[in-house]
Amino acid sequence: MKRMAVVLSGCGVYDGSEITEAAGVVIALSQAGWQAAFFAPDRDQMHVVDHAKGQQAGESRNMLSESARIARGDIKPLSLLEAGDFDALIFPGGFGAAKNLTRFVELGPAATLFPDVSRVVNAFMQAGKPVAALCAAPLVLGLAARDAGLNGVRITFGHEEEGRDMIAALQAWGQQHEEKPVSEACVDAERKFISVPAYMYGAATPAQVFAACQSAVAAVDQLLVGKFA
Amino acid sequence: MKRMAVVLSGCGVYDGSEITEAAGVVIALSQAGWQAAFFAPDRDQMHVVDHAKGQQAGESRNMLSESARIARGDIKPLSLLEAGDFDALIFPGGFGAAKNLTRFVELGPAATLFPDVSRVVNAFMQAGKPVAALCAAPLVLGLAARDAGLNGVRITFGHEEEGRDMIAALQAWGQQHEEKPVSEACVDAERKFISVPAYMYGAATPAQVFAACQSAVAAVDQLLVGKFA
Repeated sequence: MKRMAVVLSGCGVYDGSEITEAAGVVIALSQAGWQAAFFAPDRDQMHVVDHAKGQQAGESRNMLSESARIARGDIKPLSLLEAGDFDALIFPGGFGAAKNLTRFVELGPAATLFPDVSRVVNAFMQAGKPVAALCAAPLVLGLAARDAGLNGVRITFGHEEEGRDMIAALQAWGQQHEEKPVSEACVDAERKFISVPAYMYGAATPAQVFAACQSAVAAVDQLLVGKFA
Repeated sequence: MKRMAVVLSGCGVYDGSEITEAAGVVIALSQAGWQAAFFAPDRDQMHVVDHAKGQQAGESRNMLSESARIARGDIKPLSLLEAGDFDALIFPGGFGAAKNLTRFVELGPAATLFPDVSRVVNAFMQAGKPVAALCAAPLVLGLAARDAGLNGVRITFGHEEEGRDMIAALQAWGQQHEEKPVSEACVDAERKFISVPAYMYGAATPAQVFAACQSAVAAVDQLLVGKFA
């Protein structure tokens, strides 16, 4: 059975993984015959947002514990993820991807990847295995590409109007933004990077977001059989 | 556009709404042309479970704030839900449905519905509008049926082996258990109650759980057009 490593960054769009995207990825993987294994950094989130009030809450939460809510308890620390055990890697989106996996929210174009995330993406890249990301999570791809000395890697944050700051940073990192509709995957076949907008479009419907998850999984499958080669 | 009220009970299988079921319902509704509105009780959960450690955490969380993570912030207190504004009502599952919407976990067959939940289900029943529930959430249907003086309402908790305690309680409340496969809806057309097992089967795949969500939504649609009449 094909094995996908799913990396989460908490549980909830404003401070963690976007839930419809994360569950949509899980469902799409299951439909396409993949076995999913979950990982998250075993450290505190950047902050906690009360999603009903839309404001920061005065508490801290651990990403591994919160991500475990999506994974029904079956999750491991990101430090235990080995590329050799999996066929591909995927990052659902949500602000948590930007806040907890990268330093983009604090530093903008001067952002870096958290070292535990950098280690994992590098390992899949060096093994020549596909890495996919939804919504804001392609920030991880852009930073990994920059850190690896790559240029012109094709990545999407949807429409120019929706992802302006992220697109500017991506270009500052030497990579290339490709506009895509909500559910269509952007595939850089040479570097085996896949990105798809999903909730980068604020007006996306849950059905469109799920179709985006299915597109990402289908693109991974196509990369694995060399369709884009 | 058809309007569905989705009632959540937190965010995470062990102390709130099961996330794949909740997101699956949201996606299935969107695919079938429904507009979803989210509600949750504005009170504390029964308890908080660290889903990574599998043990109770020493803190309290508010159901409205936690459910808002699934609803992307767009949620209202259950006290504001009026049956007149919606075509149907649905409860995703998870232990939260049993723990936070009913007193089943403390009281077993002697359980009651929380009054805020009872008010809402009664209003939909009196308006002759469909009420659907997944996984453990049909406990809400069984208790509402008992409290309304109904007998022999057909409800499923999946296979006899999986839901033994819940099935025994359901029968003690005068209702009838109907075995169903993971993704198949049990429809009591007379009382307009729909139930579907989903993660009542512990070995269910995410694809099967999503199919269960689609079955529940399809059954609501069929009840609305009088297919079962």
